Amino acid sequence: MVKLKGFQKLANTDSALKSWFNAWQAKKPRQVELSLDDALGRVLALDLVAEEDLPRFDKSAMDGYALRFEDLVGASQFKPITLQLTEDNQVQPKQAKQVWTGNPIPKGANAVVMLENTKQRNSELEVWSQAAPGGNISSRGEDVKKGQIVAKAGTRLNPYHIGLAAALGYSELTVYFKPRVAILATGNEIAEVGSNPAENQIFDSNKSMLAAMCHELGAETVDFGIAKDNPEEITAKIKQALQNADALITTGGTSVGGLDLVPEVINRLGKPGMVAHGMALRPAMPTGVAVLDGKPVMVLSGNPVAAVVGFEVFGRPAVCRLLGLNGTEERPVVKAVMTRKVPSALGRKTFIRVLVKLKEGEFVAEPVSAKGSGSISTMTQSNGFVIVPENREGITESENVIVHMFGKLGEA
Amino acid sequence: MVKLKGFQKLANTDSALKSWFNAWQAKKPRQVELSLDDALGRVLALDLVAEEDLPRFDKSAMDGYALRFEDLVGASQFKPITLQLTEDNQVQPKQAKQVWTGNPIPKGANAVVMLENTKQRNSELEVWSQAAPGGNISSRGEDVKKGQIVAKAGTRLNPYHIGLAAALGYSELTVYFKPRVAILATGNEIAEVGSNPAENQIFDSNKSMLAAMCHELGAETVDFGIAKDNPEEITAKIKQALQNADALITTGGTSVGGLDLVPEVINRLGKPGMVAHGMALRPAMPTGVAVLDGKPVMVLSGNPVAAVVGFEVFGRPAVCRLLGLNGTEERPVVKAVMTRKVPSALGRKTFIRVLVKLKEGEFVAEPVSAKGSGSISTMTQSNGFVIVPENREGITESENVIVHMFGKLGEA
Repeated sequence: MVKLKGFQKLANTDSALKSWFNAWQAKKPRQVELSLDDALGRVLALDLVAEEDLPRFDKSAMDGYALRFEDLVGASQFKPITLQLTEDNQVQPKQAKQVWTGNPIPKGANAVVMLENTKQRNSELEVWSQAAPGGNISSRGEDVKKGQIVAKAGTRLNPYHIGLAAALGYSELTVYFKPRVAILATGNEIAEVGSNPAENQIFDSNKSMLAAMCHELGAETVDFGIAKDNPEEITAKIKQALQNADALITTGGTSVGGLDLVPEVINRLGKPGMVAHGMALRPAMPTGVAVLDGKPVMVLSGNPVAAVVGFEVFGRPAVCRLLGLNGTEERPVVKAVMTRKVPSALGRKTFIRVLVKLKEGEFVAEPVSAKGSGSISTMTQSNGFVIVPENREGITESENVIVHMFGKLGEA
Repeated sequence: MVKLKGFQKLANTDSALKSWFNAWQAKKPRQVELSLDDALGRVLALDLVAEEDLPRFDKSAMDGYALRFEDLVGASQFKPITLQLTEDNQVQPKQAKQVWTGNPIPKGANAVVMLENTKQRNSELEVWSQAAPGGNISSRGEDVKKGQIVAKAGTRLNPYHIGLAAALGYSELTVYFKPRVAILATGNEIAEVGSNPAENQIFDSNKSMLAAMCHELGAETVDFGIAKDNPEEITAKIKQALQNADALITTGGTSVGGLDLVPEVINRLGKPGMVAHGMALRPAMPTGVAVLDGKPVMVLSGNPVAAVVGFEVFGRPAVCRLLGLNGTEERPVVKAVMTRKVPSALGRKTFIRVLVKLKEGEFVAEPVSAKGSGSISTMTQSNGFVIVPENREGITESENVIVHMFGKLGEA
């Protein structure tokens, strides 16, 4: 008969994360140069420095006429001033040249008057407004100065970073390699999707789902299949995974009650092994974090929702670190009003699945039924987590909460 | 000299979008079957229907013992009841079988008691709690019933949809093809990134940025290069683009003041041509929308920030439609307090770039300086848009606003 183990003391998740990151001395990922197109969503490896001014030259901020402001002193609607039009790239005193928004300012000009304040008569221009020195001119270097850092190393590149890099003349950017995360499921009761499961088996949903969560963050994954509840098989797969990847996620084999195989194997495989195991976290209490061969290992529950929550708390910060990001990328948040009371256990950080909707101009968060809480269908029926801290016993009805959104607003 | 055209009347963006979508009778995209791994982020083409119950069988929701609740009537801490342990798959009266969370319930059993309420002595089990019928059992079909639709066609697949599909035994999902969007820049003043621009030229930043915005939404793009301000060249490129893509985005050549080449070419190329041109929108007034060969054409400004806003208002809904999504996917929103007043023009929908930060537990939105407003660097310095409706003249200081987030919170 299997011995009941239990956890002496549940670990606080914040402390566990800190100890884990201390035990795992992450190295900066390797770098690669990619085209702008391929760099979207990747993490910048080197500070992006402007190699020239932006704008590259003084340019017109308006459709109008470039001229010398001195020539318009005293101009008004009642006393228009007449200038000579020129097509040259040099504006002489008493001359004006037509410019459209973005056109370079011709030499000699120091202001632009708007089209609306002028009237053209053949080669002459009547102007009925004065102009300020530099008026309606975007000066060279006004937006970005040569030598300025426009995006720091460790930034995830969005479309506007790509646009700015292009405007600065960069056709390639130096980004970090994508980390490779190995994923291993354990459990005699688990069958591969696409196989014919035995009557008492269920399909593995954790590997595909955790791979997708890694992919969403920008990591690659390697599928190490399903290990039976057998220490030799688990040991062999974990060794192989750590040789072929930058990090490892396991699911199953970590219950307080049943077989505690994965943590035991990890502790036998090397130092420091398990850094924390058994978290003050609901769901996902059996979660563990380890370091082997200098690489981070996430030991997640076999229960899909607990695996999601374990990944959210430990996997997300770890993958962000592997990506080379400056800190953990948080999910978007909304403030919402809880539609009903939800209890939680004092001393445990609790993740409540909610569906946030916009109702009469207010965001409301409706808890998704706890019945069948292990089912992944509760994740597709909800769109966010309310995280109840350890020092609270649940959320009261009508309480204002911050929801961490993982799905679209108001969607079922 | 170029004739000043101007727009007789600016179009309301909501009406323009509606007319455009009416003129463009979108067809459903083609379908393709993809592995679960490849289906992440894609749009489901067929309703996802459960082909079996979830759970697949009655299973234990706890670590404990499966038994008959009838055998425990009257059990208490003071009067424990003793049962015989069995290893069989059939529990007889007065028998109990150990089960871990997720294990199938053996035949004959109709309840599970928690480990904590029992004590094992050799082949006997002492139980000091009663059990409810079905207690601690997750029944077959409790989470998902066979035949139930778990995700509708037109849903973008997130990691939890992938997990649920796996749990239901699906190894492949039928999704829509990615649409192809052609992107064409126009303008003599524009040089390709990587080329040697003339002194009065600037690098094209719009094509890379708009491509990235399309990619972020899940569309593919085809780069049609830069056309000079020349009707023949623009005509040839637009024709070629429409033959090779599902939609077209152009930038430049659509100013009220300067050359209005692109809309003219489009109107000469076919019906209905331009559906709306000149929007009550700031920035991005020169934006236009058209339909040619039954395909949508977005005519965006050459100014990068105006191109972003034009894409936000017209491109995003159009790409979502091309993807086969159920409606337009909105950006995440947060409610924030405006740190200072920002004026806007009555009658124009106005996009204000802001930087949202969490400050003493409150989200505050700080407008990003309007100086150099055409520069894409203002987009990398901000993380969201406040959209001022047409019937308002700006936002007052300390006003509560909804911010549409395109960047990370509190990031510069």
